[in-house]
Amino acid sequence: MTTTLVTGGTVVSSTGRGRADVLIDGERIVAVLEQGSVLLGSDLKAGVDRVIDATGKYVIPGGIDAHTHMELPFGGTAASDTFETGTRAAAWGGTTTIIDFAVQSHGQRVMDGLAAWHEKAAGNCAIDYGFHQIIGDVDADSLQAMDGLVDEGVTSFKLFMAYPGVFYSDDAQILRAMQKSHDTGLLTMMHAENGPAIDVLVEQLIAQGKTDPYYHGVARAWQMEEEATHRAIMLANLTGAPLYVVHVSAKQAVEQLAAARDDGQNVFGETCPQYLYLSLEDNLGASSAEWGNFEGAKWVCSTPLRSRHEHHRDELWKALRTNDLQMVSTDHCPFCMKGQKDLGLGDFSKIPNGIGSVEHRIDLLYQGVVDGRISLERWVEITSATPARMFGLYGRKGVIAPGADADVVIYDPDGHTSIGYGKSHHMSMDHSAWEGYEIDGHVDTVLSRGKVVIDDDAYLGVAGDGRFVKRELSQYLI
Amino acid sequence: MTTTLVTGGTVVSSTGRGRADVLIDGERIVAVLEQGSVLLGSDLKAGVDRVIDATGKYVIPGGIDAHTHMELPFGGTAASDTFETGTRAAAWGGTTTIIDFAVQSHGQRVMDGLAAWHEKAAGNCAIDYGFHQIIGDVDADSLQAMDGLVDEGVTSFKLFMAYPGVFYSDDAQILRAMQKSHDTGLLTMMHAENGPAIDVLVEQLIAQGKTDPYYHGVARAWQMEEEATHRAIMLANLTGAPLYVVHVSAKQAVEQLAAARDDGQNVFGETCPQYLYLSLEDNLGASSAEWGNFEGAKWVCSTPLRSRHEHHRDELWKALRTNDLQMVSTDHCPFCMKGQKDLGLGDFSKIPNGIGSVEHRIDLLYQGVVDGRISLERWVEITSATPARMFGLYGRKGVIAPGADADVVIYDPDGHTSIGYGKSHHMSMDHSAWEGYEIDGHVDTVLSRGKVVIDDDAYLGVAGDGRFVKRELSQYLI
Amino acid sequence: MTTTLVTGGTVVSSTGRGRADVLIDGERIVAVLEQGSVLLGSDLKAGVDRVIDATGKYVIPGGIDAHTHMELPFGGTAASDTFETGTRAAAWGGTTTIIDFAVQSHGQRVMDGLAAWHEKAAGNCAIDYGFHQIIGDVDADSLQAMDGLVDEGVTSFKLFMAYPGVFYSDDAQILRAMQKSHDTGLLTMMHAENGPAIDVLVEQLIAQGKTDPYYHGVARAWQMEEEATHRAIMLANLTGAPLYVVHVSAKQAVEQLAAARDDGQNVFGETCPQYLYLSLEDNLGASSAEWGNFEGAKWVCSTPLRSRHEHHRDELWKALRTNDLQMVSTDHCPFCMKGQKDLGLGDFSKIPNGIGSVEHRIDLLYQGVVDGRISLERWVEITSATPARMFGLYGRKGVIAPGADADVVIYDPDGHTSIGYGKSHHMSMDHSAWEGYEIDGHVDTVLSRGKVVIDDDAYLGVAGDGRFVKRELSQYLI
Amino acid sequence: MTTTLVTGGTVVSSTGRGRADVLIDGERIVAVLEQGSVLLGSDLKAGVDRVIDATGKYVIPGGIDAHTHMELPFGGTAASDTFETGTRAAAWGGTTTIIDFAVQSHGQRVMDGLAAWHEKAAGNCAIDYGFHQIIGDVDADSLQAMDGLVDEGVTSFKLFMAYPGVFYSDDAQILRAMQKSHDTGLLTMMHAENGPAIDVLVEQLIAQGKTDPYYHGVARAWQMEEEATHRAIMLANLTGAPLYVVHVSAKQAVEQLAAARDDGQNVFGETCPQYLYLSLEDNLGASSAEWGNFEGAKWVCSTPLRSRHEHHRDELWKALRTNDLQMVSTDHCPFCMKGQKDLGLGDFSKIPNGIGSVEHRIDLLYQGVVDGRISLERWVEITSATPARMFGLYGRKGVIAPGADADVVIYDPDGHTSIGYGKSHHMSMDHSAWEGYEIDGHVDTVLSRGKVVIDDDAYLGVAGDGRFVKRELSQYLI
Ligand SMILES: [Zn+2]
Ligand SMILES: [Zn+2]
Ligand SMILES: [Zn+2]
Ligand SMILES: [Zn+2]
Ligand SMILES: [Zn+2]
Ligand SMILES: [Zn+2]
Ligand SMILES: [Zn+2]
Ligand SMILES: [Zn+2]
Repeated sequence: MTTTLVTGGTVVSSTGRGRADVLIDGERIVAVLEQGSVLLGSDLKAGVDRVIDATGKYVIPGGIDAHTHMELPFGGTAASDTFETGTRAAAWGGTTTIIDFAVQSHGQRVMDGLAAWHEKAAGNCAIDYGFHQIIGDVDADSLQAMDGLVDEGVTSFKLFMAYPGVFYSDDAQILRAMQKSHDTGLLTMMHAENGPAIDVLVEQLIAQGKTDPYYHGVARAWQMEEEATHRAIMLANLTGAPLYVVHVSAKQAVEQLAAARDDGQNVFGETCPQYLYLSLEDNLGASSAEWGNFEGAKWVCSTPLRSRHEHHRDELWKALRTNDLQMVSTDHCPFCMKGQKDLGLGDFSKIPNGIGSVEHRIDLLYQGVVDGRISLERWVEITSATPARMFGLYGRKGVIAPGADADVVIYDPDGHTSIGYGKSHHMSMDHSAWEGYEIDGHVDTVLSRGKVVIDDDAYLGVAGDGRFVKRELSQYLI
Repeated sequence: MTTTLVTGGTVVSSTGRGRADVLIDGERIVAVLEQGSVLLGSDLKAGVDRVIDATGKYVIPGGIDAHTHMELPFGGTAASDTFETGTRAAAWGGTTTIIDFAVQSHGQRVMDGLAAWHEKAAGNCAIDYGFHQIIGDVDADSLQAMDGLVDEGVTSFKLFMAYPGVFYSDDAQILRAMQKSHDTGLLTMMHAENGPAIDVLVEQLIAQGKTDPYYHGVARAWQMEEEATHRAIMLANLTGAPLYVVHVSAKQAVEQLAAARDDGQNVFGETCPQYLYLSLEDNLGASSAEWGNFEGAKWVCSTPLRSRHEHHRDELWKALRTNDLQMVSTDHCPFCMKGQKDLGLGDFSKIPNGIGSVEHRIDLLYQGVVDGRISLERWVEITSATPARMFGLYGRKGVIAPGADADVVIYDPDGHTSIGYGKSHHMSMDHSAWEGYEIDGHVDTVLSRGKVVIDDDAYLGVAGDGRFVKRELSQYLI
Repeated sequence: MTTTLVTGGTVVSSTGRGRADVLIDGERIVAVLEQGSVLLGSDLKAGVDRVIDATGKYVIPGGIDAHTHMELPFGGTAASDTFETGTRAAAWGGTTTIIDFAVQSHGQRVMDGLAAWHEKAAGNCAIDYGFHQIIGDVDADSLQAMDGLVDEGVTSFKLFMAYPGVFYSDDAQILRAMQKSHDTGLLTMMHAENGPAIDVLVEQLIAQGKTDPYYHGVARAWQMEEEATHRAIMLANLTGAPLYVVHVSAKQAVEQLAAARDDGQNVFGETCPQYLYLSLEDNLGASSAEWGNFEGAKWVCSTPLRSRHEHHRDELWKALRTNDLQMVSTDHCPFCMKGQKDLGLGDFSKIPNGIGSVEHRIDLLYQGVVDGRISLERWVEITSATPARMFGLYGRKGVIAPGADADVVIYDPDGHTSIGYGKSHHMSMDHSAWEGYEIDGHVDTVLSRGKVVIDDDAYLGVAGDGRFVKRELSQYLI
Repeated sequence: MTTTLVTGGTVVSSTGRGRADVLIDGERIVAVLEQGSVLLGSDLKAGVDRVIDATGKYVIPGGIDAHTHMELPFGGTAASDTFETGTRAAAWGGTTTIIDFAVQSHGQRVMDGLAAWHEKAAGNCAIDYGFHQIIGDVDADSLQAMDGLVDEGVTSFKLFMAYPGVFYSDDAQILRAMQKSHDTGLLTMMHAENGPAIDVLVEQLIAQGKTDPYYHGVARAWQMEEEATHRAIMLANLTGAPLYVVHVSAKQAVEQLAAARDDGQNVFGETCPQYLYLSLEDNLGASSAEWGNFEGAKWVCSTPLRSRHEHHRDELWKALRTNDLQMVSTDHCPFCMKGQKDLGLGDFSKIPNGIGSVEHRIDLLYQGVVDGRISLERWVEITSATPARMFGLYGRKGVIAPGADADVVIYDPDGHTSIGYGKSHHMSMDHSAWEGYEIDGHVDTVLSRGKVVIDDDAYLGVAGDGRFVKRELSQYLI
């Protein structure tokens, strides 16, 4: 097995930073050492197969993106990144683990859905991957199947309060699934938007001829997110289920989460880079020469981008600081404009929902460090350490420590990254949702289980490097 | 220098736990290694001077008690523990660093007060120690002197909203000191009780013949703590000063802290073991054959123990889980019943305020783990990691990592500790405030900067082992 | 027309009290006069047909019970009070107006439902009556029909978030109805309990053999009321609909209402006497020689009685003081134990839901005055003035003022009322939910539109005295 | 005695409105009658001495301004309105009662202060007046004297948390006075600003050369009002004293009041027209040809005008709707620019604090009705009914009812009022703080205890018409 010494860098954890060398033996970290130490007489540098010089750079645990949708079928098309292209792009951006969503559709058996996702991913991934299980049809069969998920290493499942007729669960179904969550320890993940009410608004807007992407944001009003978030919290309170709300975008939803947490409930919230940087007016309401008002389709996702006038973004950044939101995932679900997003020309409700960001999460959040929004340690915490703890990977992932997988990123604070189509952009999309974003830092080197997969702006891995990781129950419960 | 290998144990940090060996070279940790690793061929076990077998035990960073008052003059007497006896007792209990309060009294120069405390401590301590600076007289001179504190490694100062005529600062003084806190980065620590109002209530109770220790708790009503806490928060809000409220005991004060934190303010709160376990009725209201109703004097401290009927204790434990309170210190300030506490026979207001707990903090909090109140990781966080970060010691203290001081505790979860006078009790007191408490765990071995000072129920150190530690600015601000 | 002078009493309004005489001409109050005034020389006492001496007594506007269900079909039976018996009992208790719920059932036209209720009531009532309209099936037809309700004098409609398959509206239906509420000014009334989730709990309890009335309260957990209350508030926030939540019983629901009101939203809440006085343990959990554990069936109503240990009652009384709850209605829906409630022997879910209280509301609330819970003025406000304002009757009802209907009650604070079967009990029930309650006051005389219908413990009216009252839009909106 | 019939108008109360005639006999209202009623045959119109035709107009209870400072000595000068000029201006504006503040200064006996104020007012007032008692020096003597205030008809006293060295009370003094408030029923009124902290900021600003009136608003930051408001609430909570906070201007202070009220505490808040309409930037920051930046001196008052960017005004209007603020007084304390305000040229801290508004309160609030801010009934409630109830005058004042003083205003909603110097302006000031305000309504006729004092834009009264009114304890407590 290859031995590697990462030397001279500043190791950053979720609680602090310090100079240290990292010794890797094969796929695992075997020691973290005082810098330059000639340990008990043995000259490490001379003894290892490979030395990586991280002088002046941050050495951080590889990013964990806990919310992706590779190849997801949606609205008659499918997310444009395969597990191969999507995980490769993730690696480019310093993410060494994704947790994707296996889907059980209506009428399908849960384990069949899970098996199908294993088949899509196996042998194709650049980095390690896990699965959450979407339960699209909560019935007696699927409830029973959930008992088996822990053994499969799939320790979280997702329900939808939106999308009636597709993934939607009503409150009776949610209650039963949450009882199961309480009994098994499975973490309940929730898409919290009041779908039945939103669908009325969508129908009314379309009927009024308000068909541009902008109205996607109007229809999915903050009240609909706040309400569903509160409802999910109360059902979790009743059942004792631990609850994780995905893609939080409304400050009012954050308030609901904060209140429940202050009250001691095991409630968590994730936000995404788009909610921290983009807005209803600037993006959903954008127009271009090529696409006219349909330009905004690039940013159609649910929950939607919110109004800049309501100051959601500042509140979300604040919540990241105060730990009222615990982590940032991407909800990566890319679609091309041509042939995919354009299905919704003339009817925003037919635009496939999703934004591609899996490649840029680490960079975009690092920019938050540069801008004074969050500390360096918090950056590591919300992109790696907490995702690992939340989803039962900590120790193996999410930390630079002996025994952990050697998922290590060398990040250069003096580097620079220009995001945009034709620039830094390795996702399978015909545009970038982040066109023009400039980052004051750069992912220099990425190790995935000890193998250097990104270095010197080159991808050095192969499809299949990544393996499925079985997850433990959440390590973040109080 | 001596080399030591702590092997076979489970290293617990604030974020997780895992099997790892810890290599110590002289005073510092130089490596954390995969367990039993034969590192690049070198046999560590054979190569070190000393091997400590931690199999089946927890290996944790030494405790940091950030609130002690050794030898503090108070009410015509002085705290009964010297730096020598107090730090030795701390070591017995797994605490390897204390931060004590140097005192500037009215009319005294700040740097003279600090120098006096250095003199008391130097050469006497069993473990490392730092200082906070009490500013008992905020005036132009002391404000100017505060500029020099950072260079002294004294990066926090304390004000009192209680004790008019002694340490009390009025709101004008607090405002000026907080402006200085904002300008220098010094952390403002606050004893938050409305002293002028409390003193009216004390006078009225004494006049009514209500002189027993119980009335100490009645006079210092929760409204007086909640109010002062809110006031301190608002003055901090106005000035931008980071604020740390000491010895929080009322659930309503916790609510004030939580609201400010949700709002993104740099506000922190500490509680103490007595507020988590003891109560107005059971302790301040206790009576005994020896002392009658004066028995309660053993637990006279400020803020006071609160009524069990108001459920403060459950709320404080909850706040520790939710991080609405960040850490637990002891406010160690011991007095003997005979010759000290008994000064207040017939007048509770003359009882020296304080409880001795420096020896028992780690154990009492571990019992919270056993009882399901907090997680194992949270135990390490609130007793060591957060105190280190809060007070600018992290990296050097508060973590098991290369480069850190080798302050290491081997804690046996299968051991047992009986607290009480004549049992586990090494503080200089004629009674124990914790008589009869039984702990399902035991401090087996304590290393202070690489030296074994406690092992096999014996103290192996000497006075003067401990050194003064200069502290950085807080590493916990958001 | 008959002229009447009520003389010597203390007229109590919602804002104050004072000695005044009340002159009635036919059906209306024509003057309120300084007591004993010989007005411009004319001797009123000598000039009127009838003088009622109210010396030492309170003269108050007749009570308005805004929530009754006479003859309501429910669970295979029907409420045991007809409009004749129920309104007569109301008159006995000092209530001179009821607002009952006309029902549109699934598949029925709204105006047919309303017509059916007019038919039940017309010619049978002892006192005046109005209608709210239950919309049991929100669809295009019923939404259109709602446009006509204002002209019918039916200015409020009720939806149910409980009872799936019966009256239940889903969120899409609620949203559409609330849009109509906003457009027309109709007040939205809401039964706020999460029915789908509750029905799961009911099914599980019954399956576990937990079939006693007590489990009715367990199944309908406070979280289910709090959640639905919040959801109704958010949907009202989105649509701008004014919202009135019926039969609030959980303190957590009150908190939701209070928060929305502090935020300036037109949100109102009603509670009922049962939630102020009775409890899960004492009543739903009661047993008797005759009925065993089924005794509790007498108090099966929804929302349910709450646990005494959670202190809901004190919080509800407090909310009545602070105007976080605005009024008290009865939700009068009586069923006999024999032949009705006993349908649910062996299955609490089959017990007809409802308690009979229409006769006792004024007395039970007056006891709150005696007990120091509310002021005399607040008593009048929550039983008469606010109901009149809330439901568009003020000026005509709810106040002692010239031009108002002469609905006047003479209440004796030195009288006494013993409630119970065979004592004060004129409702058509085989038991009293209020057996044994003793009231320190007494309804002496009741005038309905100028006619004395109760006097000297005798009923002097006839069926048909009461007329339908068309109501204006709410006069209580901010 | 003269008899008067006000006929044809719409009588507006705090709860509703309706056509009614009002019969006055001498100083009192003796009847409220159905309009045009030929009562029992007697022709009222023909029988009375005087008929006032109010057709098309509102008939409302005379305004009560519960916060004025006529002739108040302040900063080396005195408020420019005497009781004669000030009460006459009040009458012009539809206010028929003021409650002014008698002052006990340091070293003075309370009853001497009260006597001095009686002397100033007696024989000089155009309308009725009462007194609150300022306790400028809480000591054993003044505490004892407070026992006598109820008998004097002075049922409220005021403390200052601002103005150290002048009226300031420390928390010990406040506590003792509040204990007295609880024991006697006297209402505690509070000027809630943290004076000691503000004075530091003032000193610092002046030292920095920031001497313009604008900095008055900067120094008196919202945190200082919020903090003091909370502190007053907590001290009231501890003692059980009913609390009324004067001149609330910060939305954050309103939140504190609302929270305490939701919690059931007897806490009340008043705001003033200036906080509803004016702002830091537009007024304190104004400049003019005549005065330059000193123009802002016209609006120097404490609490200060707040920043328009923080949206305090919208929140205050909302609080008036939700009853989180209960009433509007003027804090009338006028000073001329020349010879008074100009004492502070070059040092804002020397500008006499105060604005003159006693004449315009009814009009300015009526404009809130026109603008859709509050309802017509709420206008009457916050300007007359609640002030009467709050301060123990209800029944005699604050309501159109038999037995009440005939303080009646005929307000024309079709009239118009132009406010400004040389226009509607009868206060003894050399400028108007309300220059240019145009009101869509007009005070047509004002009766004070049955005497027409304002009619047809003429003052018909004489100095001495007004009498001192003894007040009962508050009728507004819950
Ligand atoms: Zn989603
Ligand atoms: Zn997603
Ligand atoms: Zn202290
Ligand atoms: Zn202390
Ligand atoms: Zn209902
Ligand atoms: Zn009902
Ligand atoms: Zn003032
Ligand atoms: Zn004033």
